[in-house]
Amino acid sequence: MAKYQMLAETLRQKITEGVYQPGNKLPSEYELQNHFQVSRQTVRNALELLEKQGFVRSRQGSGTYVADREAEEQKKSRRIAVVTTYVDNYIFPRIIQGIESVLSKEGFQVQIAFTGNRIWKEEAILADLLEQDLRGLIIETTKSALPNPNLHLYRRLQEKGIPILFINSRYPELDCPVVCLQDERAGRLAAECLLANGHKKIGGFFKRDDGQGVRRYRGFLEALRDGGIRTAEEHILWFDTEDALDFDGMEEQIVKRLGACTGIMCYNDSTASHIMEIWKRRGISVPEDMSIVSVDDTDLAMLGDVGLTSVHHPKEKLGEKAAKQLISMIRNQLPGTSYEFEPYLAERNSVKDLTE
Amino acid sequence: MAKYQMLAETLRQKITEGVYQPGNKLPSEYELQNHFQVSRQTVRNALELLEKQGFVRSRQGSGTYVADREAEEQKKSRRIAVVTTYVDNYIFPRIIQGIESVLSKEGFQVQIAFTGNRIWKEEAILADLLEQDLRGLIIETTKSALPNPNLHLYRRLQEKGIPILFINSRYPELDCPVVCLQDERAGRLAAECLLANGHKKIGGFFKRDDGQGVRRYRGFLEALRDGGIRTAEEHILWFDTEDALDFDGMEEQIVKRLGACTGIMCYNDSTASHIMEIWKRRGISVPEDMSIVSVDDTDLAMLGDVGLTSVHHPKEKLGEKAAKQLISMIRNQLPGTSYEFEPYLAERNSVKDLTE
Repeated sequence: MAKYQMLAETLRQKITEGVYQPGNKLPSEYELQNHFQVSRQTVRNALELLEKQGFVRSRQGSGTYVADREAEEQKKSRRIAVVTTYVDNYIFPRIIQGIESVLSKEGFQVQIAFTGNRIWKEEAILADLLEQDLRGLIIETTKSALPNPNLHLYRRLQEKGIPILFINSRYPELDCPVVCLQDERAGRLAAECLLANGHKKIGGFFKRDDGQGVRRYRGFLEALRDGGIRTAEEHILWFDTEDALDFDGMEEQIVKRLGACTGIMCYNDSTASHIMEIWKRRGISVPEDMSIVSVDDTDLAMLGDVGLTSVHHPKEKLGEKAAKQLISMIRNQLPGTSYEFEPYLAERNSVKDLTE
Repeated sequence: MAKYQMLAETLRQKITEGVYQPGNKLPSEYELQNHFQVSRQTVRNALELLEKQGFVRSRQGSGTYVADREAEEQKKSRRIAVVTTYVDNYIFPRIIQGIESVLSKEGFQVQIAFTGNRIWKEEAILADLLEQDLRGLIIETTKSALPNPNLHLYRRLQEKGIPILFINSRYPELDCPVVCLQDERAGRLAAECLLANGHKKIGGFFKRDDGQGVRRYRGFLEALRDGGIRTAEEHILWFDTEDALDFDGMEEQIVKRLGACTGIMCYNDSTASHIMEIWKRRGISVPEDMSIVSVDDTDLAMLGDVGLTSVHHPKEKLGEKAAKQLISMIRNQLPGTSYEFEPYLAERNSVKDLTE
């Protein structure tokens, strides 16, 4: 910590402890210099930092005053935008619920929009948010594994001083914190489960336009390699947001790439359900003929004919964490920090033990 | 330039001008210190740099000698490995020809291997190269748009002091130069050609697992956006290395995503040829019913029923440039520099003018 940061820290403590009261004038630069035995530049840097953080306000020609943060807080917008790809199904209602519960408890209003994972919908939403008096933004990326054409809009929001926090994935070009699952680890856990059960002909079905898909693929691939299995690349199949609207249209590819495996990893429970339907139509039984591991540990994993072994996604816990991180960014006016949840495997009945 | 670098430069000049002869002893550190009026540390840093660059050799307890670079050069391996995805068709023979012509003229032996764009083939080739006495490596990436499991092998080659230069694409994690086409610009040129001819329902067919595909998509997307066209995302279709072995297996998706467009951009001429065959079977005429722009400007673009408008790829020029850059890395023992070719559009008859 630099000298000016230590001085700022000391002054901040005196402010929060009430030694210096809101609205009161701070000692002059000269007095601070003498009292703390530091240079004039150190005092100036410390005061500048405190002003940036909202603890003091300098008035032209008059000096530096302790900010009345409560009064200032009252005047500021309480509106926070929460933008996800989807709102009404799968893991999304619970993520939003987690975010909302924390934000509303802290007196913020939550405004919701969804992109459908479409870049031009994302563009329209961001353009709209730029016109509003927003206090912060929690947003899920749109097709984060592909080049994104809307980064300039995120940058304009940042320039307006609006804290942005991403959930589930991030754009590598933007310097924003993200709260997400440790997705490489999720892919690794799924692969290790198949390996531990003696599977060798292993395939994977991954989402290619979202960053989570690419990260899960990486963990999956590396775990198999570490286990001595170099899965033939023809047993890796990719789908995207458009394909997911109609998996039956991919049936031929699915059967060709994955049909000859004894076990496969699916991107998530929703994908796994579609694959299981296709297998069912074709008389392939899970797990007797084909084992499946997926990710997200949702109702879909629990309620089907066969319980799906699935890597757990924290859902509302992720939402709560995201909301807390954003609030801390707003309060401290500092860059936020990222957080990745460590996943674990929820084992059910979709993996056959081939070691017996 | 730091003081020690200037001193090294001065000494290097004296060596190349023959003031200091190969095999002769350099003045002592103390003499150099006095003569150039610099500190002992500056002299040491300069000598260390010169030794790294191969101009001098220090002998324990005896001093520093001018290296006999010609004699040392004689003893070193002249073998350079050239690894591409494919060898025998499309743009690859001409790239390899360009590389070979420059390297052989400079007295290097060219050893060839190909990966088929398979990561485990790439792994086997790199492991093999690690056992050899190689002087340098020119290599095309394998599925560079996906996480690559072989980066540790590239790093081990680097640690062995073997210069590595990539062609056509790069791995963002590795600090190696690349010689390639400016692929965003290629995508932009293709999109602008369709826009200039009055097309509005525009689609794209891109390769997902190679970096070139993602970069071309980015340029294409941004050009359309700049032209006021937000191409519906359902008119973007992705394929990968496996799909490319059997485009007919994707026919349903191709027709569904691209069939309703008036013009499409294809990843390259090879892809465009397959699409044109599918259209032909279905009675769709190019360019009357559907315009196509692609990339690479190969024989395929010239020899079909309809001449394909295609963005030019430099082929042997790219190979020559790559070879020259690698030789300069070997000679100067410095990190190489990247080079991107500026593309241009070779216009033929596959785009219909809708502005008339």
